[in-house]
Amino acid sequence: MYRLHIANKNYSSWSLRPWVLMRQLDIPFEECLTPFESDSNWSSFRTFSPSGLVPCLEDGERVVWESLAIVEYLAERHAGIWPTDDEARAWARCAGSEMHAGFSPLRSLCPMNCGVRVRLHAIPDALAHNLARLDELWQQGLERFGGPFLAGETFTAVDAFFAPVAFRVQSFGLELGAPSIAYVERLLALPAMQQWCQAALDEPWREAGHEAEVQESGTVIEDLRRLS
Amino acid sequence: MYRLHIANKNYSSWSLRPWVLMRQLDIPFEECLTPFESDSNWSSFRTFSPSGLVPCLEDGERVVWESLAIVEYLAERHAGIWPTDDEARAWARCAGSEMHAGFSPLRSLCPMNCGVRVRLHAIPDALAHNLARLDELWQQGLERFGGPFLAGETFTAVDAFFAPVAFRVQSFGLELGAPSIAYVERLLALPAMQQWCQAALDEPWREAGHEAEVQESGTVIEDLRRLS
Ligand SMILES: N[C@@H](CCC(=O)N[C@@H](CS)C(=O)NCC(=O)O)C(=O)O
Ligand SMILES: N[C@@H](CCC(=O)N[C@@H](CS)C(=O)NCC(=O)O)C(=O)O
Repeated sequence: MYRLHIANKNYSSWSLRPWVLMRQLDIPFEECLTPFESDSNWSSFRTFSPSGLVPCLEDGERVVWESLAIVEYLAERHAGIWPTDDEARAWARCAGSEMHAGFSPLRSLCPMNCGVRVRLHAIPDALAHNLARLDELWQQGLERFGGPFLAGETFTAVDAFFAPVAFRVQSFGLELGAPSIAYVERLLALPAMQQWCQAALDEPWREAGHEAEVQESGTVIEDLRRLS
Repeated sequence: MYRLHIANKNYSSWSLRPWVLMRQLDIPFEECLTPFESDSNWSSFRTFSPSGLVPCLEDGERVVWESLAIVEYLAERHAGIWPTDDEARAWARCAGSEMHAGFSPLRSLCPMNCGVRVRLHAIPDALAHNLARLDELWQQGLERFGGPFLAGETFTAVDAFFAPVAFRVQSFGLELGAPSIAYVERLLALPAMQQWCQAALDEPWREAGHEAEVQESGTVIEDLRRLS
C-alpha cells in the first residue's frame, strides 16, 4: 500500500493536493502526518523526504516527492487522474502547472489556514492580478469542458491542484466571479475536503511561523479551531 | 509543425527548457522570439500566451503553456522525453518538478544571463542551501542511473529542466562537487546549448530589469555579448 507523508492539515497546502486526489479517486494509502516544527531546519522532513518537503509518497522501496511528480506517478498506475480527452488533459496540465510554479502573491499573502477567517489589510496589485488570472482560468475551464469540475465531469488532478485555493478563498473572503465562487463551493462540499477540514480544525498544534504569516496579511475575525 | 514562443535567449531560463529538449531530440519546431519589454505589464506575451508567460507551444489550434505541461504534452507524442525505465522516469519527474517550483534563492540571486561573468557579493545561507541540495540531487542521479546524463544514458526532460542552471553556474562561478561540475560541462558542450548561447551573445537587446538583477547580486567582471 502507498504511504503518503503530509504535514499539518490546517496549514499544508501542498500536502492537500495528492491527499484529496487519492481520497476522491478511492486510491488506498496510509497517511503519515509529521507536524511542522519551528526551527526544525528541514531536519524532521528530511528523514523521509529527499527534498525535506512534503508531500512525499512511498510506494514500497520507491520514494516519490513533489506534488506534480506524485500526480504523474499515480497517472501511470490509476485511471482518472487526468481527463481522458486529449484537449482537456493538455489544458488541465497547463493549469495545474501554472498553479505549481506561479501565483506567489496569492500563496504568500493568503496562506492556507483552514480554521481561520481573516479580513485582509489590503489587496495589493499583485494579489488582484493573481485573482483576475485565477478567475479567468477557472471560467475558461468550466465553460470549455462543461463543468462541474475544471476539466469536465469528474474531479481530476487539476482540481486537486486548486483545492488549497478553495480554502484560501473561504478563509480570506476573496472576491471572484459567480462561476468561480460556485466552483469553490463545490470543492468545499466534497467529502474528502470536508474530512480534511474537520481534521484540520481538530489539530492541537499551532506553528508560530504559519500563524504570523496570517497576522501580517490581515485581522483574524474568527478562529474555528477546537483549541482556540 | 509546432511553434514555440520564447523570449530573449540571454535571459529566459524557462524558454530554454523546452527549446533545448526539442532541439536535442530533433523534434522540429518553428521558433518565435518576442523580446522582453520593460513596462510591458505582460501585455505583449498575453497576445499568444494565456498566462502572459513564455514558453508557450502552439500545436495547430492548441495552445500549451507552462514548461512542465509542454514537456508532458510532448511526452505523449514523442519517444525519449522521459527515460523508459520506470525507476529513472519517476526520479526524473521528481527532480524536474523540484526545480520547477523550488530553488528560488538560486533563481533570484543568480538570474540566467548567458553573456556575463559575475563575482557574487556574498553567498547567503539560502543560496548555499540550494547549492548543497543541487549537488546532492545531481550526484544521486548520476550515480544511480550511471550518467552521463541525470537519468541515464540519454538527454531527457530532467536535463532540460536543469539546463539553465548550467548557464548560471558558468556565469556566477558557483562551486559544486566535481561530478556536478563535470555534468555542467557536458551540458554546456551540447550542440543545442552552444547554439542557444551563441544566439544569446548576438542579441541586440538589453532589458533594464534583468540587468539590474545581476548588478544587485554581484560585480560583472566580464560581458561577452557582441554589443558590449
Ligand atoms: N513544490 C513542492 C512544494 C512542497 C512544499 O513547499 N511543502 C511545504 C509544506 S506545504 C514544506 O514541506 N515545507 C517544509 C518546511 O518549510 O520546513 C511540491 O509540489 O510538493
Ligand atoms: N512556470 C512557468 C514560468 C514561466 C516564466 O516565468 N517565464 C518568464 C520568462 S523566463 C516570463 O514569461 N516572464 C514574463 C514577464 O515577466 O513579463 C513555466 O514553467 O513555463
